[in-house]
This record gives sequence, C-alpha cells and structure tokens, in this order.
Amino acid sequence: MAKIRLGMVGGGRDAFIGEVHRYAARLDGEYDLVAGALSSTPEKSRESGLALGLSEDRCYGSFEEMAEAEAARPDGIEAVAIVTPNHVHGAAAEAFLKRGIHVICDKPLTATMEQAEQLAKVIRESDALFILTHNYTGYPMIRQAREMVARGDLGAIRVVQVEYAQDWLADDTGGKQAEWRTDPARAGLGGSTGDIGSHAHNLACFVTGLDVDTLAADLQSFVPGRAVDDNAHVMLRFKGGARGMLWCSQVAVGCENALTLRVYGEKGGLSWGQEEPNKLWFTPFGEPKRLLTRGGAGALDVANAVSRTPGGHPEGYLEAFANIYTEAAAAIRAAQRGEDAMNLLPGLDAGLAGMNFIAACARSSTEDAAWTAL
Amino acid sequence: MAKIRLGMVGGGRDAFIGEVHRYAARLDGEYDLVAGALSSTPEKSRESGLALGLSEDRCYGSFEEMAEAEAARPDGIEAVAIVTPNHVHGAAAEAFLKRGIHVICDKPLTATMEQAEQLAKVIRESDALFILTHNYTGYPMIRQAREMVARGDLGAIRVVQVEYAQDWLADDTGGKQAEWRTDPARAGLGGSTGDIGSHAHNLACFVTGLDVDTLAADLQSFVPGRAVDDNAHVMLRFKGGARGMLWCSQVAVGCENALTLRVYGEKGGLSWGQEEPNKLWFTPFGEPKRLLTRGGAGALDVANAVSRTPGGHPEGYLEAFANIYTEAAAAIRAAQRGEDAMNLLPGLDAGLAGMNFIAACARSSTEDAAWTAL
Amino acid sequence: MAKIRLGMVGGGRDAFIGEVHRYAARLDGEYDLVAGALSSTPEKSRESGLALGLSEDRCYGSFEEMAEAEAARPDGIEAVAIVTPNHVHGAAAEAFLKRGIHVICDKPLTATMEQAEQLAKVIRESDALFILTHNYTGYPMIRQAREMVARGDLGAIRVVQVEYAQDWLADDTGGKQAEWRTDPARAGLGGSTGDIGSHAHNLACFVTGLDVDTLAADLQSFVPGRAVDDNAHVMLRFKGGARGMLWCSQVAVGCENALTLRVYGEKGGLSWGQEEPNKLWFTPFGEPKRLLTRGGAGALDVANAVSRTPGGHPEGYLEAFANIYTEAAAAIRAAQRGEDAMNLLPGLDAGLAGMNFIAACARSSTEDAAWTAL
Amino acid sequence: MAKIRLGMVGGGRDAFIGEVHRYAARLDGEYDLVAGALSSTPEKSRESGLALGLSEDRCYGSFEEMAEAEAARPDGIEAVAIVTPNHVHGAAAEAFLKRGIHVICDKPLTATMEQAEQLAKVIRESDALFILTHNYTGYPMIRQAREMVARGDLGAIRVVQVEYAQDWLADDTGGKQAEWRTDPARAGLGGSTGDIGSHAHNLACFVTGLDVDTLAADLQSFVPGRAVDDNAHVMLRFKGGARGMLWCSQVAVGCENALTLRVYGEKGGLSWGQEEPNKLWFTPFGEPKRLLTRGGAGALDVANAVSRTPGGHPEGYLEAFANIYTEAAAAIRAAQRGEDAMNLLPGLDAGLAGMNFIAACARSSTEDAAWTAL
Repeated sequence: MAKIRLGMVGGGRDAFIGEVHRYAARLDGEYDLVAGALSSTPEKSRESGLALGLSEDRCYGSFEEMAEAEAARPDGIEAVAIVTPNHVHGAAAEAFLKRGIHVICDKPLTATMEQAEQLAKVIRESDALFILTHNYTGYPMIRQAREMVARGDLGAIRVVQVEYAQDWLADDTGGKQAEWRTDPARAGLGGSTGDIGSHAHNLACFVTGLDVDTLAADLQSFVPGRAVDDNAHVMLRFKGGARGMLWCSQVAVGCENALTLRVYGEKGGLSWGQEEPNKLWFTPFGEPKRLLTRGGAGALDVANAVSRTPGGHPEGYLEAFANIYTEAAAAIRAAQRGEDAMNLLPGLDAGLAGMNFIAACARSSTEDAAWTAL
Repeated sequence: MAKIRLGMVGGGRDAFIGEVHRYAARLDGEYDLVAGALSSTPEKSRESGLALGLSEDRCYGSFEEMAEAEAARPDGIEAVAIVTPNHVHGAAAEAFLKRGIHVICDKPLTATMEQAEQLAKVIRESDALFILTHNYTGYPMIRQAREMVARGDLGAIRVVQVEYAQDWLADDTGGKQAEWRTDPARAGLGGSTGDIGSHAHNLACFVTGLDVDTLAADLQSFVPGRAVDDNAHVMLRFKGGARGMLWCSQVAVGCENALTLRVYGEKGGLSWGQEEPNKLWFTPFGEPKRLLTRGGAGALDVANAVSRTPGGHPEGYLEAFANIYTEAAAAIRAAQRGEDAMNLLPGLDAGLAGMNFIAACARSSTEDAAWTAL
Repeated sequence: MAKIRLGMVGGGRDAFIGEVHRYAARLDGEYDLVAGALSSTPEKSRESGLALGLSEDRCYGSFEEMAEAEAARPDGIEAVAIVTPNHVHGAAAEAFLKRGIHVICDKPLTATMEQAEQLAKVIRESDALFILTHNYTGYPMIRQAREMVARGDLGAIRVVQVEYAQDWLADDTGGKQAEWRTDPARAGLGGSTGDIGSHAHNLACFVTGLDVDTLAADLQSFVPGRAVDDNAHVMLRFKGGARGMLWCSQVAVGCENALTLRVYGEKGGLSWGQEEPNKLWFTPFGEPKRLLTRGGAGALDVANAVSRTPGGHPEGYLEAFANIYTEAAAAIRAAQRGEDAMNLLPGLDAGLAGMNFIAACARSSTEDAAWTAL
Repeated sequence: MAKIRLGMVGGGRDAFIGEVHRYAARLDGEYDLVAGALSSTPEKSRESGLALGLSEDRCYGSFEEMAEAEAARPDGIEAVAIVTPNHVHGAAAEAFLKRGIHVICDKPLTATMEQAEQLAKVIRESDALFILTHNYTGYPMIRQAREMVARGDLGAIRVVQVEYAQDWLADDTGGKQAEWRTDPARAGLGGSTGDIGSHAHNLACFVTGLDVDTLAADLQSFVPGRAVDDNAHVMLRFKGGARGMLWCSQVAVGCENALTLRVYGEKGGLSWGQEEPNKLWFTPFGEPKRLLTRGGAGALDVANAVSRTPGGHPEGYLEAFANIYTEAAAAIRAAQRGEDAMNLLPGLDAGLAGMNFIAACARSSTEDAAWTAL
C-alpha cells in the first residue's frame, strides 16, 4: 500500500510537538512527509524543510501558499499535520479542509471560541477528515480502561479523579515553548487549562464515556507577571450523577508529565498514570488488586490492537501518539474509498468539548468558582 | 519512672480504635491501663475489662461512675483515653477534665459544634491536658516534612493536594464500625468528612503550617439510604494565598487507607503517602528527585526523635500512634511538674479547626459549594 | 491472664536489638520485664536496668548470677530474652535452660558449631522451651506466602531467589554495632552470612518448606582489614530439585534492610520485600498479577491471625517481631500446662539449619565455591 | 540526507524481532527498507515482502540470492539487517560482508563457537561494518549509568547483580518463537543463557566497563523434554576484583521481560530495570537516594543525546532499539566517508564476549559449576 503523502504546518527547528508528530507519522511507515510550511518565516521554513529532506519546491513560506500549491499538484499532499501555536490552528485547518485535504491537528482545537465555531462550520462542510491529536487516548491501557468501563467491570461510575501536573513553568525560564504557551494571544484563553487540562478532561471523558455537565473552577497564576493560569482546581459534575475533580498545574515542582486518571465505580476501580503507561490497576471490590500490563495476561483485544511488542517491552509516548497517526491513516484510506473509519479517533466533537471545558473553567473562575455548564 | 495510670472509655470487644489506643499506650511502656468503662452496658464493660486484665472493681458501667470513683482513689487514673463514638467525646472528656484527669481523646473533637463549644469551655477552664489523637501527625516523615517546609526548603507554598481514600463503605456491609460512623446522631454532621476528611485537613495544615481561609465543598452520599456523606470534593484557599484540593472518600473501590499529601512550593515539592510511611519524596526544582527514608541519610532530628529503629526496618501506623501517646506521657509528666510540653501535640485548637472544617464542608455543600469561611 | 515474667541478658544502652526485643515483648502486653543482666559490666548493667524501671535487686552483673538468683525466687522470671553478641548465646541459654527457664534467643544460634552442638544437647535435655527470633517469619504476608506454597498455589517450586542487602558496613565507620559484628571472636564464623544471610536462608526455607541440600558460596571481604565476609554470593540446590540463589551484602550502597524473597513454581510466582512488608505479589501463570495486602481482600486466616489492624494501616518490623514474642508467650503458657504450642515458632532446628548454612558457606568459599552439603 | 537503503534477512510474518528491527529502522527516518529475504521459502518471502511494500523483484528467496543481486544493482542495499534464528546469522552475515554490504545483526553472534570464529574472520577482513543489536545498551539511562561509573560516581565497583527473568517458556506452549529458541540446532548451545543471559552479561559489562574473568554456572532445564537450559544461576568474578551474580530464567512465572541491573561501588550504587527504563536510581553512600529520570534534572549529555522527548514522556523498548539503528546509520555514513563512528555500538567484540559467556556457562555447568574462564 502506498504511503500517505503528508504535509506539515509548523514544527520547524526547536519546536517540540512537530518533531513528535513526525516520529508518530514515521513509526508505522504509513506516511511520507513531502511538504511543509514549517516556520513563520519563508527563510526558516525552507531551512527546516531541507533539513528534513523535503525537496526545495515543497518548502513553503506560509500555509496558504502551501495549501494552494499542493492542491494543484497531481502528487500533492493527501493530509496535513498542523502543529503550530493554537491561534493558527483554525485558519490553517480551514485552508486545507476547503481544498479537500485531510487535517491532523494538535490540540486544543483553536485559541478562541470564535475560531472554534468558525472551524467547526468548515469541518462540517468539508468532505475531508479532521483529526485532533488527543494523543493520550492512543495508549493501549487507556483503550483497555475504556473497554472495561464500557462493558461494566466497574459498575456505575461514581467518582473520577484526574490530574495533570508538570513543573516546567514553575518559574519564568521555560524557553521558546513557554513563550507562546503563556501568551494569551497565541495560546488562547487557557494556560494550563488549555495546554494540559484539556488533555485531562478529554482522557476522563474518553475512558468513562461520561460528559461533564457543570464544573466549578478556581484558577491561579502563581508566577508573577504570567498572563494565563498556571494551576487550576476544578470540581466536576458529570451527566448521570458521577462526580470528579480535575487538577492541572504547570508549577507542581517535581512533576514531569504526570497525567493520572482514577475511576471508581460501584463494583471496581481503575488507576492509570501516563509516566508508567504499560500498567493499569484494576481493583474489583472485595477482591485482590490486579495489575494489568500491556501485552500481558488480561490485556484485551482493544489494547492488543494498538500494541506492537510483547509484555515487558515498554511502549511509551511516541507509540501512543503513533497509534493516533496510524488510525488516522486507516481513516484517511477509508475516506478515500468513501467509507468511515474514524472509530475512536478524536475529532471535532472532542475539540469542541475541550474548548467548552477551557472556556467554562475561565468563566467559572471569574465568577468565584460558580458552577458553570459546559 | 513510674508508668502513668491510664483509664479508657469505650474500646470494648470488636471496637477497632480502642485496641489501637491500647497498642499505642503499651509500645513504649509509658502507661499502665488500670481502669475502664469499655462498653455501653455494665455487663459488657466488665467482660471486656476482665479480658484486658483490669481488676473487677475498676471495670465501670459508665464513664461518670468511673470518673467519680477514680478521682476518689489515691491510686486513681492520671489520664483517660476516650475512644467512643463521637457523640460521647464531649461529655466523657468533661467528666474527667473537671476532676483534673488528663484526657487523650480520639478525633473528631465532638459530634456537633454545640458539643465542641461546650467542651472547649471546659478544656480552657481545666488544669488537665486535652490531647486529640490526630495520629498521622506522629509519623516521623510527617515531622520531617513539617520541618522542611518550616525551614524553607520548599519556598513559599503554592499548592497543597491532600486526599484520603478508602473503600470499606462502598456498599452497606461495613459491620459494627460502619453502623455508628454512618449514623449522624453518633458520628455527627460529617460522614467521610468527619471520619477521614478531618484527618486530611489536619495533616495538610500540620505539615504546611497554613490555615484554610475558605473552602468550597461538594459532598455526596453515593450509597443509597446513607444519611451522611461518603465522598467529598473540596477546593481550599489558604490564608496567605496557597490553594489546594482535598478529596476524601469511603467509596473509592480499591483504596484501603490512602491518605496522601503533596505540597508544592516555589522551590520544591514534597510527597508522602500513609501506606508507605517510611518514605518522603523531596523534589527540589531543577534537581534530581530525592527519596528520603525514615532512619536513612537525610532524616532530620525531628524525624529521628520519633523513630525507633534504623532505616529499612519499616515502622507503621501503630508506631506513629504510639508517638502521640509517648509525647502525651511526656506532656502529662511535665504538667505534673507544672511545666508545659505540649509541643506539637494536637489539642483543642486542632480539634476546633477540625470541627470548623467539617461544618464548613457541610454548609458549603448545602449552598451548592459556595466559598465558606472556616 | 497474668503477664509472663521476663528477664533479659544483653540489651543495655546503645544496643540495637535489645531495644527491639523489648518493644516486641511490650506490644501485645504479654510480658513484664522484671530482671536483667543488660551489660557486660555490673555498673552499666545496673544503670541500664534502672533506666528501664527494673528494681535494683534484679539488675544483675552477669547472666550466671541472674540465672541463679531468679531461679531461687518464688516470683522469679519464667522466660529470658538473650540479646547479646553471638558468642554469649550458648552459655547464657544453657544457664537458664538448666534451671527450667524458657529462652527466647536472638539469632544466629551461637558463634561456633561447637557452641551450637553443646547448646543443642542442653536444649534437648531441658523441659524449657528454646525459641530463636527469626523475626522475619513473623510477618503476616510471609505467613500467607508459606500457606500459599503449602497448599499448592504455585505448584512444584522450581526457583528461589532470596537476597538481603544492606550498606551500613560499606566502610569501617559502623559504630558499636559494627564492632562486634565484624569480630569473628564475638560474631562467629560468618560476617554477613551470619548476621543477615542466615535470615535470608531461614526465610527461603520457611516459606517454601524446602531444605537446602548443597550450596556453592563465594564470600568476600571488600572493606580492607575486615576479618569477616561482608558480601556473599551463594548458589543453592534444594532437596527435591529446586534451585536458587542467595545474595547477602553489607556493602550494597543504597540498600537499607532489603530482604527480598521471590519464589517461582510451575503454576505461579510470589514476591515479597521486607521494606514494604504489607504487600505480597502473587502471579499465577497466564493470569493478571495480583497484589495481596495485609488485611486486604485475599488475605488468608494465617495472615490475619498475626495482624492487628485493617488493610492500609501499615504494620512493620516491630509488629512482626512482636508476633514471635506473642506466639512464644502462647507456647510458654502451653508448656506450663504441659502442652505443646511451638507451631511455626523457630527453635533449635531452625538454629542448627542456620549454623549449618553459615558453616557451609565458609567451607565452600574456602574450597573455591565447591558444592558443599549442609 | 538520503536514507540508507536497507535489506532484511528473516523477519517475515509472525516473526517478533524482525518487526522490531523495522520499527527501529523507521523511527528516526534514517533507513529505507527496499529488499528482503524475509522467510525460509521463496513463496512466503515474497508474500511478506509485498505486504511490507517491497517491489516484487527485490523479494528474494534466499539471502545468497539477495546478496548477489543487490550487490549488482547500482541502487542496491547499503546495509542489511539479519534477524533470523541464530544458526543462520553467520552464513548470512558473511554473504553480505564479503560484498561490502554493512551488516546489522541480531544477537547472539551465532549458534556455535565454530560459526562465531568463522564469522569473526570474515568481519575482520571486511571493510563493511558489523553491528550487533545489543539493544538494551541503547537506553538513555543505561548510557547515563555507564557514564556515571566511568567518571567515578560509584568509586571502585565491588558488586554487580544482574538478572533477566521471563516466564513465556514456563510451559511448552510458547508458539513459533519458542520452537526455534528451544532447538539447539537453531538457537545454539544456550537456551536462556543465549537468548537473554547474553543480554544480561552484555549490559553488566557495558555499564561497568568490566570484563568477566571466570564464572561458575548452574544451568537447569525445568520443563520436561526441553533440550536447552531455561534457567541459569551464575556467579561472576570480574577482572579487577569485583564480584557478581547473574540470573536468567524463562520459567520465572510472573516476570515479563525483567532485565535489571544493580551496581555497587565503594561510594555509591546504581539500579535500573528495563520495564521502567526512564528511571535510574543513584544512591551515593550516606546521602539521600536520588531518582534520575530520562530528560529530567541530572540527566547527562550522553543520555540526552539518545533521547527524543522531555522528561515524563516515557520512551521505551523501540526507542532504545532505534538508538542503535540511528547510531548505526551514523557509523555507516561515516564509513562511507572513510571515517570511524562505531563509538559505543556493539560489534564483533561484544559478540565474541557473548559467545564466550554462553559457552563458559555451558562448560561450567557440565563440570558441576566449576569456575571457568571466559
């Protein structure tokens, strides 16, 4: 099967997430990166593109130029990865979707609700796919957790505890990544809520199958001069009666990328942490605790399907990210055949839910943590 | 040095916490249990007392009888441990304090605020000591954590995450312990907030040296028919600007006695969990994570002072509880010499703070999680 | 029931293990320490005794004096704890056993095989009990492990991996404890093999029910000038065909008291570590791993019987040690009634097996790790 | 930079390690797989090749055919990955090396010492590179450990404990992988010693920089009818005086891929486990234990150089394997320029050391664990 021709917007030198998308696209051999508008200036964009082995004529100075040119080529890109700061997501996605080019976009959906609504319209009108890389949903044991909840292993869900703690913004020395992520104009309304809280929210909903009804949020900016939140405490009320708490922080000194999810139902509990992603604790009420391992005894088909190696051979962040890319490839090929294969892939719905979460956090916090509907 | 003559109210057959108090009193050999009103009926009380080796004439049918008789004996008890359901704490403590007998009382202070205020008055007027067994403050590594915060190892505190999760009330089969702890008449206003949330609140304040200013609480009773909360989500605003979250639950299936505390300051973080109490993580910003162990390198004097064995010889719940008892013995002996040695021992202040916490949780939750001052 | 009148030989100021025995004797309230020959000089012995609350006339200058005097008293001691350096065990035990006083003795049995044989003779001829404090057998989850092996949960045992690693002798600054433990005249033939290897050997045999047939040992003394081994690598062949490895070290920098046991059978595996003693991993072949916890779901009667608190309330080293003392109390009371209740208590057999292990290690190592029968 | 044209011998349908090599080759985008002799029959080979996107004319029926044909093409492969059962390694490598095609070969070097010696001769005479995928040396924290030992953080090494435990051969149902790995004709002399013990040996030597002088090995075949060892206990004496133990087992029920290494020196200790490879414990004597994390504070340049993402984004088995491939690519490009860039890459020396280890284990075990020089 021929590889999917992929372009990339953003992700030039020193970018973190662009490189991650490229690893993810390469791992399973489903994509060929052939074009890019990798940086904000034509000069840098060209330089980055050549370093990645792109041919010179496909190193573009802007996404508009790239969309137009690639759409016109018989061997033009079939899909594009958008890995820019958030405020560019909407316009860039629109440029490609309007030309029938599938979009794989980093989260959150956009920087503002206005941009989100505009993009939603475009996505709904386009025949091309829109995939949002809520990459943590790609972990095998997260798929397992979702399946276990869905099939009733936990009974009715009562309590959901989710948190995402980092410390790289504990002072104001975070470098280039910090620069745009703490600038409301580029990051959007949310700081930690947008950057990582939205992942936590997404993961909790993905695994439990529940939607947040209302939330009460208390946001802080601990580092002097910071224009966005760097810590957020959020109480959650889910539709159907479950309750939860979400904590996200980028000033939790000692935490690297500590996304953890715990779910408690009437009959059992689940616990998973991103930093040891091959493990999933399942604790049925009144029975010994069980440690389920990726590839190990007790791993379900849904987990094995997105797993590459036997148990004990740790898979990590890039493999989970690659699972999203590989499922996106399948969805794109299906779309090319006129079929649907989005399955569990996050798209517009997850994106809007995330934007609603971020906006509700901001609104609630402004109103002294009043309960706010999503 | 002669042992302190101790009496006990409550703690008869099948009681959990009375037995714990007895282990704690015995471990360091500072007390002699010589009298008791151990059960709610004279019959059972006598039976339990004889089984514990009390002489028959010091097995009392009620705490009033015991207080009167022991106060009249030349070899009467010097101190009494009160380990009854919460609604009895106040009256029992009063009976002994009024007769100059020192009181060691289980937490929370009382079942109601009215009882608490009445008891506070008695305590303030009495020359006898009142010690509240917030036993988790007796762990060596908790003492270490407190000292590290106090001396500035973490810098100014920003975030405090504390939780106390159990699952023994996940259904309605909890036995005798469950019976009174879920009965508002005996347990008081709080269910999980009173039984374990108050410990979490106390521990957070003990370690950080901070006081909660206001809180917003969302309490639930998940088990049908339960008259008290069995799960609580609480957002905390501390005086001075730190923020936090407290979660307590007795329906978190798979959790046994999971009291954990994480504190994040400008310069470092601390993390401790009660189920592995000999370990304390210290994570200075920008440096390798350090695992401090009880009795190990890096253990401070304040930790070593309440430690019995070298590193690697795990000490646990009973040793921490015994630390409170042994410090209480020192305080009692000091009081007998007219000196003060309460030091870190929890007493009336901690008790009232706990009651205020429980009441504020209830009040806030009734008002849809409105911010409520303690 | 009246407490058992206990004496103690050794265990004066600054002694580590004597204090541990006293905690163990106190915790369950089964003993009253009433006499002691606590130090090697009458002066120090008296001083230590008074500090422990002994009456002056029962602070003895030597164990001989104590044995004679106590045997003559109507209220003389019923049992004695021997917690001296190893070379004194034999003579001290003999003095009491010959007078019908029960002996609770620290391990190893003696310093030399000659002493061991002499003591064995005395024990066999005495009506009094001899209990050896292989304290690690007192842990609830070790009892559970033994029971699980015995009832066949693991199938036939194939492989046993046991190790005991410390670092307190990694240089030559270990203080008083180090002094006698590295002196062959007082410690006996074995350094690390005698001090901790014997515990590892005992634990492996206790849990598996297997006996070591032959071993091949490679002993080292890494610290310059050290007269005894401080590290030992030992391959084990058990009777019946299982194989194993034992590693003990007192120079394993970073290890505190890391006694761990792993047992693998045809149908399942078990893993336990002393520093987190409330946990036992059980891994049935082809099934999810299970974490069994003390007091938790899946805890067997044999574990619950030596457990004091519910799951999640960590019990540790002193509780396990106290279990030996409390079972010894039951055995002593039974003996006083003419009955036997040694049950799982380690005694002469375990002591001789330990001595044989230590001697075989030394002999094998001298012969370049030749296979040596125990 | 153009990708390196890669061929593959072995690794057809259902093969485990061939797929791993392909992930490793793809992740960093340094290779293009363009040719293969993927299975033992031309039919299957063609089928597997087409499924992987090879053009039909480069799907070969045998490695001889492939070597000849590719060497003759102007766009022929520059390197070949050999991922067959062990007995084919030698002949296949020879076919390519003789034609100047670089070889990346799975371990162990060959099935027999005779094959190893023959291959050594070929390698020494060839201008092409020979790289052996001792993939565990590719882990960032293993690089860190090696550097820390080398620069003296641990002082002189005293004790090395290494083990590699699995359970997939605990019975005789291991499938295709089990079939050849337990067949001496295809696997070679060693069962577990060859398959995993050789990795453990390699890792211990790689990190410590030490060579094993002599060893004493006790090998077992626990599963009835098994022709090769499935468990091995080995005592190690290193040149320079350090001692160690190596345990490898494929019948350790409950172990997945538990390769762990612990190194103890005069001044500090290190501990690392493959199943949580982003963590490295460093325990300097007399100081708090430190947990070093990949990408975290304290990570050295040598670790960061083979790391793709920030701390807390777990990297795993495939990333470590890819590090070997990517360093191999650099070495190949250097060789094409006439330069040397083998650096830390394992090659013939590591391969021969591994064969000597396997052979010494077998020989020692036959002689009742006599000390045997490597």
